[in-house]
Amino acid sequence: MSTSVTERLQALRDEIQFLGLNAWLVTSADPHLSEHLPEHWMFLRYLSGFTGSYGCMVITADRALLWTDSRYWEQAARQLEDSGIELMRFGAEGVPNARQWLCENLPENAQVGCDPLTISENDFRRFEIAFAERRMILTGYISVTDHVWKDRPHPDSAPISVFTNAQESVARKLEKVRKAVHAAGADSLLLGTLEDVAWLTNLRGSDIACTPVFTAYLLVTDDDVTLYVDPKKIQTNDVKKHLKASGISVIAYSDRRAHIAQHLNGHSVLLDADAVNHAVYALLEQESSAYVVAGERPTALLKSRKNKAELELLKETMRQDGAALCEFFARLDEMLWDGETPTEQELAEMLHAERAKRKGFVCDSFPAIVAFGANAALPHYNPLTGNNANLQSDADTLLLIDSGGQYEGGTTDITRTILIGRATDAMKSDFTAVLRGHIALATTVFPKGVFGSQLDTLVRAPLWEIGADFGHGTGHGVGFFLSVHEGPVSISPRAPVKENSRVVPGLVLSNEPGLYRAGQYGIRTENLVTPVVDETMLSAMQPMLRMQTLSLAPIETRLIKTAMMTPVEINWVNDYHNRVREELMPLLSPRARKWLERATEII
Amino acid sequence: MSTSVTERLQALRDEIQFLGLNAWLVTSADPHLSEHLPEHWMFLRYLSGFTGSYGCMVITADRALLWTDSRYWEQAARQLEDSGIELMRFGAEGVPNARQWLCENLPENAQVGCDPLTISENDFRRFEIAFAERRMILTGYISVTDHVWKDRPHPDSAPISVFTNAQESVARKLEKVRKAVHAAGADSLLLGTLEDVAWLTNLRGSDIACTPVFTAYLLVTDDDVTLYVDPKKIQTNDVKKHLKASGISVIAYSDRRAHIAQHLNGHSVLLDADAVNHAVYALLEQESSAYVVAGERPTALLKSRKNKAELELLKETMRQDGAALCEFFARLDEMLWDGETPTEQELAEMLHAERAKRKGFVCDSFPAIVAFGANAALPHYNPLTGNNANLQSDADTLLLIDSGGQYEGGTTDITRTILIGRATDAMKSDFTAVLRGHIALATTVFPKGVFGSQLDTLVRAPLWEIGADFGHGTGHGVGFFLSVHEGPVSISPRAPVKENSRVVPGLVLSNEPGLYRAGQYGIRTENLVTPVVDETMLSAMQPMLRMQTLSLAPIETRLIKTAMMTPVEINWVNDYHNRVREELMPLLSPRARKWLERATEII
Repeated sequence: MSTSVTERLQALRDEIQFLGLNAWLVTSADPHLSEHLPEHWMFLRYLSGFTGSYGCMVITADRALLWTDSRYWEQAARQLEDSGIELMRFGAEGVPNARQWLCENLPENAQVGCDPLTISENDFRRFEIAFAERRMILTGYISVTDHVWKDRPHPDSAPISVFTNAQESVARKLEKVRKAVHAAGADSLLLGTLEDVAWLTNLRGSDIACTPVFTAYLLVTDDDVTLYVDPKKIQTNDVKKHLKASGISVIAYSDRRAHIAQHLNGHSVLLDADAVNHAVYALLEQESSAYVVAGERPTALLKSRKNKAELELLKETMRQDGAALCEFFARLDEMLWDGETPTEQELAEMLHAERAKRKGFVCDSFPAIVAFGANAALPHYNPLTGNNANLQSDADTLLLIDSGGQYEGGTTDITRTILIGRATDAMKSDFTAVLRGHIALATTVFPKGVFGSQLDTLVRAPLWEIGADFGHGTGHGVGFFLSVHEGPVSISPRAPVKENSRVVPGLVLSNEPGLYRAGQYGIRTENLVTPVVDETMLSAMQPMLRMQTLSLAPIETRLIKTAMMTPVEINWVNDYHNRVREELMPLLSPRARKWLERATEII
Repeated sequence: MSTSVTERLQALRDEIQFLGLNAWLVTSADPHLSEHLPEHWMFLRYLSGFTGSYGCMVITADRALLWTDSRYWEQAARQLEDSGIELMRFGAEGVPNARQWLCENLPENAQVGCDPLTISENDFRRFEIAFAERRMILTGYISVTDHVWKDRPHPDSAPISVFTNAQESVARKLEKVRKAVHAAGADSLLLGTLEDVAWLTNLRGSDIACTPVFTAYLLVTDDDVTLYVDPKKIQTNDVKKHLKASGISVIAYSDRRAHIAQHLNGHSVLLDADAVNHAVYALLEQESSAYVVAGERPTALLKSRKNKAELELLKETMRQDGAALCEFFARLDEMLWDGETPTEQELAEMLHAERAKRKGFVCDSFPAIVAFGANAALPHYNPLTGNNANLQSDADTLLLIDSGGQYEGGTTDITRTILIGRATDAMKSDFTAVLRGHIALATTVFPKGVFGSQLDTLVRAPLWEIGADFGHGTGHGVGFFLSVHEGPVSISPRAPVKENSRVVPGLVLSNEPGLYRAGQYGIRTENLVTPVVDETMLSAMQPMLRMQTLSLAPIETRLIKTAMMTPVEINWVNDYHNRVREELMPLLSPRARKWLERATEII
C-alpha cells in the first residue's frame, strides 16, 4: 500500500492544479504548533522522507524544495537523495528563505496554498507581507492533506490523566490567568499550545513522544472554562471528577469551531499570534463577533515560574535522574573494561533502562544524543539517523551523552562528556574552557530581572580566551513534567529583550556551553539551574540573584586541566562533587557507589 | 516682543481649532532627524521653555503635556513649573507614552496634527498603527510652526567647508554606496541625515552646535549626485571646486521637493524609514513615480568603519586631547591647593580653553558634563541647567568630568572621575569595580562579528559582584569629525541583534561603565576603543578581536583598591599609564608634566 515520494508529490501536484494554485507550502507543525508532532501531523515526513524536527517545503508544478537548519543539513541530504527534492540550507549565506524564494520564483499575482491549521498567525502574516509587493496571495485549504495522504494515521486517542503532582490548583492558576487577561484588555483567552493547556488544567496525556501533553484547545472566560478534546480521551473517573471539580466543561474537539465562535460572541479574546494557528485566528477575527486582542498568552510566563513545591519535587527528581546516570556510567566503564563495543543506540537504550528503574519515571524527555568521537561535533547528532558508531575503549576520544527524563516530579535534561581512552592536551584545554564557561554561569551574581541575553556572554568569555565559541545558545527553559524546551526565557545572544524575558527566581534553565571540533570531537557540559536570591549581598543597590545548580552527576575529572582554572573554579568543582556524592550515594548500587567515589575524587 | 509660554500655547490652540483638529503633536526634531537641533527647529523649546535634547509634546484644547526621559525629569520639572504644562515621565512605571495617551484621551475618529518634517517615517507609522483601532488619524501640516512661532530664527546659512582630512575620496565612497544600493534592490539613494550627507560628500558645516554638519539632502543615482542645500552656504572656491571634481550638482534646498520627485521618475529609491522624515517619504511613495525600497541606508555602516588613515589621525588627536586634559587637571590641582572654589561651569570653560589651544581643535563635541559630588549621580548632569556647584577642596567627594572635542583629526569623548579631599572605602570599592568593568572590555578577546549586545555583560559583571549596576549602555559609536553619538553599533543590553550591529575592526566605540549613588556621588571611567585583530591567537577556530584603547589620560590611582583586582588588571593599569606618559609627556608644559608623573605612579 505504501507509495513512493514521487507518487506522493504527484498526488499533491494534482491537488495544486485542481485548485488553480502556483505552489503549495508544507510546514512541520500541527494545529497546536508543537515542536514535536503526533503521527497524524507528520505530513512533511510523509511527503519527503525527511525525519528532522524542523523543516518547510514548497512544491510547484515542476520543483520541490525543502528548507531545514544546520542541525539537519547532513541528515536531510542523505534522506532526500534521489527524491528529486532540492535541499535548501536555511541560514547558509545566500540561501533565500521560503518566502523570498516564492517571491523570486513565482509570477506576479501567484497563488500559494497551505494548510491554515499548520501555520501560526504571525508566520502567515509574514508571508502576506512578503507577498504584498508582488500581489501574491497565500490561501488556506484544510482538506488537501487528507486528499493527498492516503493512509494518514488516525489522530491519537490516548487517555488523559490527572497530574496528581501539580503543586497549584486549577482554581488558583485560573485566578492568575484571568487577572493577566484583564490587564491585557480582554475578558477571555483561547489557548492552542498543548503545554499551556496541560499546565492550566493540571492534566497530562501522551499524544506526542517525550512530552506528556494531549491534543486540545482551552477557552477561558470570566464565567467558565471549556476544554475542546476528543471525548474518547476521557476514560477514568479521576479525570471526570477533576474536570468537574475544576469547573471545566468538555466539548468535542471536532465541534470546537462552531462552539468557540458562538461562545465568544460579544467577548474580547486574547490571542497569541505566535501560539495560535491561522485558521483559529481567522475564525475569531473574521467569522465571529468576538473582538480580538493580540498579545502574549499569560500562561507562558506563569508556567515558566515554578513554585517552591515544584522545585522541591524537581530536586528529588534530580537525585533519581543522577542516580540513573551513575548506574549507567558505572556499567559502561565495566563494558569497556571487558572489551565490549556497544553502539551509540545500545547505550541510549541502556540509559533509558536505568532511568526506567527510577521512581516517578514516565519516559525520556527527548531522544538521547549519544555521540562518539567526531559524531559529537554535530551538536544535535542522533544515533538513529547517524552512523550509530561502535564504541572502542582504545579510541582516545570523547563520548558525549545528552539525555533527559520525564518524571512525575519534573523534567530533566543533562549532558556529560567523558573520556574514552587517553586524552590529548587539546581535549583537556577544550574541556576545561567549556567547564569554566559552565562555572561562570553557575557562580556569577547578577541583578534580578536582567534579560536572558545578558547572561550568555559569561559562559562564552572563557571559550573566547582560547579562540573558541559555540553556535547554539547557552540555555533554554525547561517545563515541569512538560516540554524540555519551554519559553519565554532563554540564555542566548538572540534571546528577545522584552519584559517577559527577564531572569527571575522560579525559572528552570539549562546551562550548556559546548565546543565542537569538526571531524574530531564535541564537548558539552549541561546542568539545569534555577535563579535564587543571593542573601549574602547585604549592601547591594538592588536584589541580586545567582544560579543554583539542580542536576547531579559527576563531571569528567580526567579531562580537567586545573592549571587553566582559578582557585574559585577548582573549589566549585570539588564542592559540586561533594554535593553529588552526598545526595546520590544512598540511592546507588555497590558498583555505582564505587564508580562515583572514583569519579568525584578531589581535583 | 517676546511672548509667554501661555500666549504661545494659545497661538497653537488657535491653529488647532482653525484646522478642526483634536490635538497637535510636537517632537524635538528637525527635518533631518538630528539629535541636536539648529535654532530654527527648536520649536519644542520655544513652546515649553524646556531645553533638554529629547522631548515630545501633545497639546489639546485644554491640556498640554511634555514627555521626556529620566535624564531630564528633574530639569523639566523645574523648567515647566507654573507653565501649566504637565510633565510626563517617559519610562516611569504606569506612565503612558504619547501614542497611548492620545488613544486613551481623545474621542474615536479624532484628528491629530503634526509637522511631517519633524517625524521619521517609522515613528509616523507607529502612530498610525496605534491610532487605527480607534479610527484616529495623524495628519501633517507644514505651515503651522511658522504661523505660531512669530519671531522664529532664520535657518542657518553658515558656510560649508571642504573636509581636507577626509581619508577616502568621494568617488570611492560613492562606488561602495552604489554597490550597496544595488544589493538592496534599488538604483538610487536619498539621504536626509546630516552626518551621512557630510560623510559622503567630504564636506563639513556648522549649522548645529558641537557637530560639524550642514543642513542638506543628498540624492545619489547611478548617473549623478545632487546636493540640496542653501546656495548661500557655498561661498569658497575650494568648495565649488570640490563639488565639481566630485561630480556633485547643487540644487537649492527650497527647490528640493519638485526636483527630487521629478529626478527619481522611474527610479527605485532606497529610503531608510528611521532616517527620513514622513514628508519626504510620502513625497516619494505617494506623489512621485519612484518605486520606494525600504531599507537601512548603507552610509550608516560604511561611515562607522574607519579606515587605517582615519584611525592614525585619530590617534594623534587622542594625544592632543589627552594633553589638554592633563593641563586642565594640573591647573585644577593648583587651584584647589590654593583654596579656590571654581564652579562646575567655570571648569567646563577652563577645559574648553585647554582644548582650544590644541592642534586641529574646532569645538567641543558636546556640552561638557562637570559634576561635583551628588550632582554626578545624575548620569547626564549639565552645570548649565543644574545647580552649578562650587568645588570645595575639603569636600571628600568625587568630581566627574565627561567631555570631548571635535578635531579635524577626529572626534573625542572621555570621562574621568577624580577624588576631591579624602576617599572613603566605599568610594574606592565602587571606583575599583567600575575600573574592573572598564578593563574587562579593554582586555577580553572575542570573536570577530559578535553583536555589540554580547560585550555589554563583560563590563557589568565586576559591578554585579559588589551588588551594583548602571542604567545606561556601556558604549556608543563615535564619528570621525562628525557626531559623538554614531550608529549603527553600540554596546548595550538593548543593542539590536542585526547584521549591521556586529563588532568588526574599524569601529570607534566608547567604553564607559559607571556607578551612581543617589545623593552621594557618581563614577564613570570612559575611553574610546577600536576593535583590532588579535594576532596572538594562532590556534583560534575563527578570527578573534580585542579592543585597542585610544583615549589617553591618567585614571585616578588614589581611588583604586588593588586588593580587589587581579594581577592582570593591575598590570593593565600600569601598562596603560606607561603608555599615557610616553605619548603625552612631549606635549606638556612643565607643570602638567609634573602632575602626570605623579598621576601615573605605579600601583
